[in-house]
Amino acid sequence: KKKSTINYGDRGMSLEQEINLSNAYYLNKGIAVIHKKPTPIQIVKVDYPKRSAAVIKEAYFKQASTTDYNGIFKEKYIDFDAKETTNKTSFPLNNFHQHQISHMQQCSKLGGICFSLIKFVKTNELFVLNGTDLFFYWERQYNDGRKSISKQELENSGYKLSYQINPLIPYLDAVDKIIDDNGGK
Amino acid sequence: KKKSTINYGDRGMSLEQEINLSNAYYLNKGIAVIHKKPTPIQIVKVDYPKRSAAVIKEAYFKQASTTDYNGIFKEKYIDFDAKETTNKTSFPLNNFHQHQISHMQQCSKLGGICFSLIKFVKTNELFVLNGTDLFFYWERQYNDGRKSISKQELENSGYKLSYQINPLIPYLDAVDKIIDDNGGK
Ligand SMILES: [Mg+2]
Ligand SMILES: [Mg+2]
Repeated sequence: KKKSTINYGDRGMSLEQEINLSNAYYLNKGIAVIHKKPTPIQIVKVDYPKRSAAVIKEAYFKQASTTDYNGIFKEKYIDFDAKETTNKTSFPLNNFHQHQISHMQQCSKLGGICFSLIKFVKTNELFVLNGTDLFFYWERQYNDGRKSISKQELENSGYKLSYQINPLIPYLDAVDKIIDDNGGK
Repeated sequence: KKKSTINYGDRGMSLEQEINLSNAYYLNKGIAVIHKKPTPIQIVKVDYPKRSAAVIKEAYFKQASTTDYNGIFKEKYIDFDAKETTNKTSFPLNNFHQHQISHMQQCSKLGGICFSLIKFVKTNELFVLNGTDLFFYWERQYNDGRKSISKQELENSGYKLSYQINPLIPYLDAVDKIIDDNGGK
Protein backbone atom coordinates (compact mmCIF):
# COMPACT_ATOMS: atom_id res chain seq x y z
CA LYS A 1 0.00 0.00 0.00
CA LYS A 2 1.34 3.42 -0.89
CA LYS A 3 1.31 5.96 1.91
CA SER A 4 0.23 9.52 1.41
CA THR A 5 0.90 12.63 3.44
CA ILE A 6 -2.55 13.99 2.57
CA ASN A 7 -5.17 12.78 4.99
CA TYR A 8 -8.28 12.28 2.94
CA GLY A 9 -10.15 11.32 6.10
CA ASP A 10 -9.84 14.71 7.71
CA ARG A 11 -12.82 16.40 6.06
CA GLY A 12 -15.22 16.90 8.92
CA MET A 13 -17.50 14.12 7.70
CA SER A 14 -18.99 11.53 9.94
CA LEU A 15 -17.87 7.95 9.42
CA GLU A 16 -21.35 7.24 8.05
CA GLN A 17 -20.97 9.97 5.41
CA GLU A 18 -17.55 8.64 4.49
CA ILE A 19 -18.91 5.12 4.05
CA ASN A 20 -21.91 6.36 2.05
CA LEU A 21 -19.53 8.13 -0.33
CA SER A 22 -17.46 4.97 -0.66
CA ASN A 23 -20.61 2.93 -1.33
CA ALA A 24 -21.69 5.38 -4.02
CA TYR A 25 -18.34 4.83 -5.71
CA TYR A 26 -18.64 1.03 -5.47
CA LEU A 27 -22.22 1.16 -6.79
CA ASN A 28 -21.29 3.44 -9.65
CA LYS A 29 -18.47 1.12 -10.71
CA GLY A 30 -20.72 -1.95 -10.50
CA ILE A 31 -18.46 -3.41 -7.80
CA ALA A 32 -20.97 -3.76 -4.96
CA VAL A 33 -24.50 -2.77 -3.97
CA ILE A 34 -24.31 -1.82 -0.29
CA HIS A 35 -26.66 0.66 1.35
CA LYS A 36 -27.16 2.22 4.75
CA LYS A 37 -30.42 1.00 6.24
CA PRO A 38 -32.77 3.86 7.11
CA THR A 39 -33.02 4.78 10.78
CA PRO A 40 -36.02 2.98 12.26
CA ILE A 41 -38.70 5.41 13.43
CA GLN A 42 -41.86 4.81 15.44
CA ILE A 43 -44.46 7.07 13.87
CA VAL A 44 -47.24 8.27 16.21
CA LYS A 45 -48.97 11.14 14.44
CA VAL A 46 -49.21 12.12 10.77
CA ASP A 47 -51.00 15.10 9.24
CA TYR A 48 -52.34 14.93 5.70
CA PRO A 49 -52.65 18.54 4.52
CA LYS A 50 -54.62 19.16 1.35
CA ARG A 51 -52.52 19.47 -1.79
CA SER A 52 -49.23 18.80 -0.02
CA ALA A 53 -47.16 15.94 1.32
CA ALA A 54 -48.00 14.07 4.52
CA VAL A 55 -46.22 15.56 7.54
CA ILE A 56 -45.06 13.39 10.42
CA LYS A 57 -45.87 15.43 13.54
CA GLU A 58 -44.84 13.02 16.27
CA ALA A 59 -42.37 10.17 16.02
CA TYR A 60 -39.60 8.55 18.04
CA PHE A 61 -36.27 6.93 17.28
CA LYS A 62 -36.35 3.17 17.69
CA GLN A 63 -33.29 1.10 18.49
CA ALA A 64 -32.03 -0.67 15.38
CA SER A 65 -32.34 -4.44 15.71
CA THR A 66 -29.70 -5.22 13.14
CA THR A 67 -26.65 -3.44 11.71
CA ASP A 68 -26.07 -0.23 9.73
CA TYR A 69 -25.23 -1.62 6.31
CA ASN A 70 -25.88 -4.64 4.14
CA GLY A 71 -25.71 -5.63 0.52
CA ILE A 72 -23.90 -7.76 -2.02
CA PHE A 73 -20.29 -7.99 -3.21
CA LYS A 74 -18.80 -10.82 -5.32
CA GLU A 75 -21.97 -12.92 -4.95
CA LYS A 76 -21.67 -12.67 -1.17
CA TYR A 77 -24.02 -11.23 1.41
CA ILE A 78 -22.24 -8.40 3.25
CA ASP A 79 -23.39 -7.10 6.63
CA PHE A 80 -21.57 -4.65 8.86
CA ASP A 81 -21.78 -1.95 11.43
CA ALA A 82 -19.81 1.29 11.49
CA LYS A 83 -18.46 2.41 14.86
CA GLU A 84 -16.59 5.53 15.89
CA THR A 85 -14.68 6.04 19.11
CA THR A 86 -12.95 9.07 20.61
CA ASN A 87 -10.81 6.71 22.69
CA LYS A 88 -7.15 6.61 21.76
CA THR A 89 -5.85 3.21 22.70
CA SER A 90 -8.82 0.85 22.74
CA PHE A 91 -12.30 0.30 21.35
CA PRO A 92 -15.03 -0.05 24.04
CA LEU A 93 -17.33 -3.04 23.49
CA ASN A 94 -20.30 -1.13 24.87
CA ASN A 95 -20.52 0.41 21.39
CA PHE A 96 -22.21 -2.86 20.45
CA HIS A 97 -25.54 -4.22 21.56
CA GLN A 98 -26.19 -7.92 22.04
CA HIS A 99 -28.85 -7.93 19.31
CA GLN A 100 -26.35 -6.57 16.76
CA ILE A 101 -23.88 -9.29 17.68
CA SER A 102 -26.64 -11.94 17.50
CA HIS A 103 -27.73 -10.64 14.11
CA MET A 104 -24.18 -10.86 12.77
CA GLN A 105 -23.75 -14.36 14.23
CA GLN A 106 -26.95 -15.52 12.50
CA CYS A 107 -25.82 -14.06 9.17
CA SER A 108 -22.34 -15.58 9.55
CA LYS A 109 -23.85 -19.03 10.12
CA LEU A 110 -25.71 -18.74 6.81
CA GLY A 111 -22.54 -17.81 4.92
CA GLY A 112 -22.61 -14.03 5.08
CA ILE A 113 -19.54 -11.86 5.58
CA CYS A 114 -20.05 -9.81 8.73
CA PHE A 115 -17.68 -7.31 10.26
CA SER A 116 -17.32 -4.02 12.02
CA LEU A 117 -15.71 -0.96 10.49
CA ILE A 118 -14.12 0.90 13.39
CA LYS A 119 -12.77 4.45 13.32
CA PHE A 120 -10.57 6.12 15.91
CA VAL A 121 -11.68 9.67 15.26
CA LYS A 122 -8.80 11.41 17.07
CA THR A 123 -6.24 9.80 14.79
CA ASN A 124 -8.34 8.98 11.69
CA GLU A 125 -7.37 5.33 12.00
CA LEU A 126 -9.66 2.74 10.44
CA PHE A 127 -9.95 -1.00 11.04
CA VAL A 128 -12.12 -3.75 9.64
CA LEU A 129 -12.65 -6.40 12.31
CA ASN A 130 -14.04 -9.68 10.98
CA GLY A 131 -17.09 -11.14 12.73
CA THR A 132 -15.33 -14.21 14.09
CA ASP A 133 -12.77 -11.99 15.82
CA LEU A 134 -15.40 -9.56 17.04
CA PHE A 135 -17.42 -12.45 18.49
CA PHE A 136 -14.27 -13.66 20.29
CA TYR A 137 -13.70 -10.26 21.95
CA TRP A 138 -17.41 -9.95 22.70
CA GLU A 139 -17.42 -13.32 24.54
CA ARG A 140 -14.16 -12.53 26.31
CA GLN A 141 -15.76 -9.73 28.30
CA TYR A 142 -17.92 -12.36 30.03
CA ASN A 143 -14.85 -14.46 30.80
CA ASP A 144 -12.06 -12.15 31.92
CA GLY A 145 -14.15 -9.00 32.14
CA ARG A 146 -12.15 -6.97 29.64
CA LYS A 147 -14.66 -4.45 28.23
CA SER A 148 -12.66 -3.29 25.24
CA ILE A 149 -10.47 -4.32 22.34
CA SER A 150 -7.01 -2.76 22.48
CA LYS A 151 -5.70 -1.01 19.40
CA GLN A 152 -2.84 -3.50 19.39
CA GLU A 153 -5.36 -6.33 19.16
CA LEU A 154 -7.06 -4.56 16.26
CA GLU A 155 -3.66 -4.18 14.55
CA ASN A 156 -3.08 -7.91 14.98
CA SER A 157 -6.48 -9.42 14.22
CA GLY A 158 -8.10 -6.71 12.07
CA TYR A 159 -7.36 -5.15 8.71
CA LYS A 160 -6.05 -1.60 8.86
CA LEU A 161 -7.33 0.71 6.14
CA SER A 162 -5.96 3.99 4.77
CA TYR A 163 -8.11 6.76 3.39
CA GLN A 164 -7.69 7.32 -0.32
CA ILE A 165 -9.40 9.41 -2.99
CA ASN A 166 -11.81 6.89 -4.52
CA PRO A 167 -13.29 5.08 -2.75
CA LEU A 168 -12.59 7.25 0.29
CA ILE A 169 -12.61 4.17 2.55
CA PRO A 170 -11.55 1.12 0.51
CA TYR A 171 -13.10 -1.33 2.95
CA LEU A 172 -13.90 -3.93 0.30
CA ASP A 173 -10.12 -4.51 0.04
CA ALA A 174 -10.38 -5.89 3.57
CA VAL A 175 -13.44 -7.94 2.61
CA ASP A 176 -11.39 -9.42 -0.25
CA LYS A 177 -8.78 -10.46 2.31
CA ILE A 178 -11.48 -11.96 4.53
CA ILE A 179 -12.76 -13.97 1.54
CA ASP A 180 -9.17 -15.10 0.84
CA ASP A 181 -8.65 -16.03 4.50
CA ASN A 182 -11.86 -18.10 4.32
CA GLY A 183 -10.42 -19.99 1.34
CA GLY A 184 -12.44 -18.11 -1.24
CA LYS A 185 -15.76 -18.66 0.54
CA LYS B 1 -48.05 -29.52 -2.82
CA LYS B 2 -50.97 -30.45 -0.60
CA LYS B 3 -54.01 -28.21 -0.91
CA SER B 4 -56.04 -26.99 2.02
CA THR B 5 -59.59 -25.70 2.22
CA ILE B 6 -58.62 -23.36 5.06
CA ASN B 7 -57.37 -20.04 3.75
CA TYR B 8 -54.60 -19.01 6.12
CA GLY B 9 -54.14 -15.83 4.12
CA ASP B 10 -57.54 -14.41 4.97
CA ARG B 11 -56.65 -12.81 8.28
CA GLY B 12 -56.94 -9.12 7.60
CA MET B 13 -53.19 -8.68 7.61
CA SER B 14 -51.31 -6.64 5.08
CA LEU B 15 -48.91 -8.51 2.80
CA GLU B 16 -46.08 -6.83 4.66
CA GLN B 17 -47.31 -8.20 8.00
CA GLU B 18 -47.68 -11.66 6.47
CA ILE B 19 -44.12 -11.57 5.14
CA ASN B 20 -42.76 -10.26 8.44
CA LEU B 21 -44.39 -13.20 10.24
CA SER B 22 -42.92 -15.59 7.71
CA ASN B 23 -39.49 -14.01 8.14
CA ALA B 24 -39.75 -14.35 11.92
CA TYR B 25 -40.36 -18.07 11.42
CA TYR B 26 -37.41 -18.42 9.04
CA LEU B 27 -35.16 -16.47 11.42
CA ASN B 28 -36.25 -18.49 14.44
CA LYS B 29 -35.50 -21.76 12.63
CA GLY B 30 -32.10 -20.51 11.48
CA ILE B 31 -33.19 -20.87 7.84
CA ALA B 32 -32.75 -17.28 6.68
CA VAL B 33 -32.10 -13.77 7.98
CA ILE B 34 -34.36 -11.46 5.99
CA HIS B 35 -35.69 -8.17 7.31
CA LYS B 36 -37.96 -5.40 6.13
CA LYS B 37 -35.97 -2.23 5.65
CA PRO B 38 -37.28 0.68 7.70
CA THR B 39 -39.28 3.31 5.84
CA PRO B 40 -36.94 6.15 4.90
CA ILE B 41 -37.83 9.42 6.62
CA GLN B 42 -36.50 12.93 6.10
CA ILE B 43 -36.26 14.43 9.57
CA VAL B 44 -36.61 18.22 9.76
CA LYS B 45 -37.20 19.07 13.43
CA VAL B 46 -36.40 17.19 16.63
CA ASP B 47 -37.15 18.25 20.21
CA TYR B 48 -34.95 17.05 23.04
CA PRO B 49 -37.08 17.34 26.18
CA LYS B 50 -35.31 17.05 29.53
CA ARG B 51 -35.38 13.58 31.07
CA SER B 52 -37.27 11.99 28.18
CA ALA B 53 -36.73 10.63 24.71
CA ALA B 54 -36.10 12.85 21.67
CA VAL B 55 -39.34 13.65 19.81
CA ILE B 56 -39.41 14.08 16.05
CA LYS B 57 -41.74 17.05 15.46
CA GLU B 58 -41.49 17.43 11.71
CA ALA B 59 -40.54 14.80 9.18
CA TYR B 60 -41.53 13.60 5.72
CA PHE B 61 -41.75 10.25 3.96
CA LYS B 62 -39.02 9.78 1.40
CA GLN B 63 -39.34 7.51 -1.59
CA ALA B 64 -37.42 4.30 -1.02
CA SER B 65 -34.52 3.99 -3.44
CA THR B 66 -34.26 0.23 -3.18
CA THR B 67 -36.63 -2.64 -2.32
CA ASP B 68 -38.60 -3.65 0.77
CA TYR B 69 -36.64 -6.69 1.94
CA ASN B 70 -33.14 -8.09 1.82
CA GLY B 71 -31.05 -10.64 3.64
CA ILE B 72 -29.36 -14.02 3.36
CA PHE B 73 -30.57 -17.56 2.60
CA LYS B 74 -28.33 -20.55 1.72
CA GLU B 75 -25.26 -18.29 1.42
CA LYS B 76 -27.09 -16.16 -1.12
CA TYR B 77 -27.99 -12.51 -1.09
CA ILE B 78 -31.78 -12.18 -1.31
CA ASP B 79 -33.52 -8.95 -2.37
CA PHE B 80 -37.20 -8.50 -3.11
CA ASP B 81 -40.17 -6.22 -3.13
CA ALA B 82 -43.69 -7.07 -1.94
CA LYS B 83 -46.54 -5.80 -4.10
CA GLU B 84 -50.29 -5.99 -3.62
CA THR B 85 -52.90 -5.36 -6.26
CA THR B 86 -56.70 -5.17 -6.10
CA ASN B 87 -56.81 -6.00 -9.82
CA LYS B 88 -58.24 -9.39 -10.68
CA THR B 89 -56.67 -10.48 -13.93
CA SER B 90 -53.36 -8.65 -14.24
CA PHE B 91 -50.63 -6.93 -12.26
CA PRO B 92 -50.02 -3.29 -13.24
CA LEU B 93 -46.37 -2.43 -13.80
CA ASN B 94 -46.83 1.06 -12.39
CA ASN B 95 -46.52 -0.61 -8.99
CA PHE B 96 -42.80 -0.53 -9.68
CA HIS B 97 -40.48 2.42 -9.98
CA GLN B 98 -37.51 2.49 -12.33
CA HIS B 99 -35.06 2.86 -9.41
CA GLN B 100 -36.38 -0.36 -7.81
CA ILE B 101 -35.93 -2.24 -11.09
CA SER B 102 -32.44 -0.76 -11.51
CA HIS B 103 -31.54 -1.73 -7.96
CA MET B 104 -32.65 -5.33 -8.58
CA GLN B 105 -30.77 -5.43 -11.88
CA GLN B 106 -27.58 -4.27 -10.16
CA CYS B 107 -27.96 -6.90 -7.42
CA SER B 108 -28.71 -9.63 -9.98
CA LYS B 109 -25.54 -8.80 -11.90
CA LEU B 110 -23.51 -9.35 -8.74
CA GLY B 111 -25.10 -12.76 -8.12
CA GLY B 112 -28.02 -11.88 -5.85
CA ILE B 113 -31.44 -13.49 -6.09
CA CYS B 114 -33.97 -10.75 -6.78
CA PHE B 115 -37.69 -11.14 -7.22
CA SER B 116 -41.09 -9.68 -6.55
CA LEU B 117 -43.66 -11.25 -4.24
CA ILE B 118 -47.03 -10.32 -5.73
CA LYS B 119 -50.41 -10.70 -4.02
CA PHE B 120 -53.83 -10.46 -5.64
CA VAL B 121 -55.70 -9.31 -2.56
CA LYS B 122 -59.22 -10.06 -3.88
CA THR B 123 -58.41 -13.74 -4.32
CA ASN B 124 -55.50 -14.19 -1.87
CA GLU B 125 -53.31 -15.47 -4.70
CA LEU B 126 -49.56 -15.20 -4.33
CA PHE B 127 -46.79 -15.34 -6.92
CA VAL B 128 -43.03 -15.08 -6.81
CA LEU B 129 -41.77 -13.55 -10.04
CA ASN B 130 -38.04 -13.94 -10.61
CA GLY B 131 -36.06 -10.83 -11.49
CA THR B 132 -35.13 -11.95 -15.01
CA ASP B 133 -38.83 -12.40 -15.85
CA LEU B 134 -39.81 -9.16 -14.15
CA PHE B 135 -37.14 -7.29 -16.13
CA PHE B 136 -38.55 -8.83 -19.33
CA TYR B 137 -42.08 -7.58 -18.60
CA TRP B 138 -40.71 -4.22 -17.48
CA GLU B 139 -38.84 -3.74 -20.79
CA ARG B 140 -41.83 -5.00 -22.78
CA GLN B 141 -43.92 -2.00 -21.80
CA TYR B 142 -41.48 0.21 -23.73
CA ASN B 143 -41.76 -2.06 -26.77
CA ASP B 144 -45.39 -3.05 -27.21
CA GLY B 145 -46.82 -0.70 -24.61
CA ARG B 146 -48.44 -3.37 -22.45
CA LYS B 147 -48.50 -1.84 -18.95
CA SER B 148 -49.24 -4.98 -16.97
CA ILE B 149 -48.41 -8.65 -16.49
CA SER B 150 -51.43 -10.90 -17.00
CA LYS B 151 -52.24 -13.45 -14.32
CA GLN B 152 -51.79 -16.14 -16.95
CA GLU B 153 -48.24 -14.91 -17.55
CA LEU B 154 -47.60 -15.03 -13.81
CA GLU B 155 -48.95 -18.60 -13.72
CA ASN B 156 -46.58 -19.51 -16.56
CA SER B 157 -43.39 -17.68 -15.63
CA GLY B 158 -43.77 -17.24 -11.86
CA TYR B 159 -44.03 -19.55 -8.89
CA LYS B 160 -47.48 -19.76 -7.32
CA LEU B 161 -47.51 -20.01 -3.53
CA SER B 162 -50.17 -21.27 -1.13
CA TYR B 163 -50.63 -19.92 2.35
CA GLN B 164 -49.84 -22.41 5.09
CA ILE B 165 -49.52 -22.33 8.86
CA ASN B 166 -45.77 -21.92 9.28
CA PRO B 167 -44.32 -20.05 7.56
CA LEU B 168 -47.52 -18.31 6.53
CA ILE B 169 -46.04 -17.50 3.11
CA PRO B 170 -43.45 -20.17 2.21
CA TYR B 171 -41.75 -17.96 -0.34
CA LEU B 172 -38.31 -19.49 0.18
CA ASP B 173 -39.68 -22.65 -1.48
CA ALA B 174 -39.90 -20.56 -4.64
CA VAL B 175 -36.39 -19.22 -4.04
CA ASP B 176 -35.18 -22.82 -3.79
CA LYS B 177 -36.71 -23.45 -7.21
CA ILE B 178 -35.06 -20.31 -8.60
CA ILE B 179 -31.72 -21.56 -7.28
CA ASP B 180 -32.38 -24.96 -8.91
CA ASP B 181 -33.40 -23.31 -12.18
CA ASN B 182 -30.11 -21.35 -12.06
CA GLY B 183 -28.23 -24.64 -11.73
CA GLY B 184 -27.61 -24.30 -7.99
CA LYS B 185 -26.21 -20.81 -8.31
MG1 LIG C 1 -23.08 2.10 13.74
MG1 LIG D 1 -43.51 -3.02 -1.70
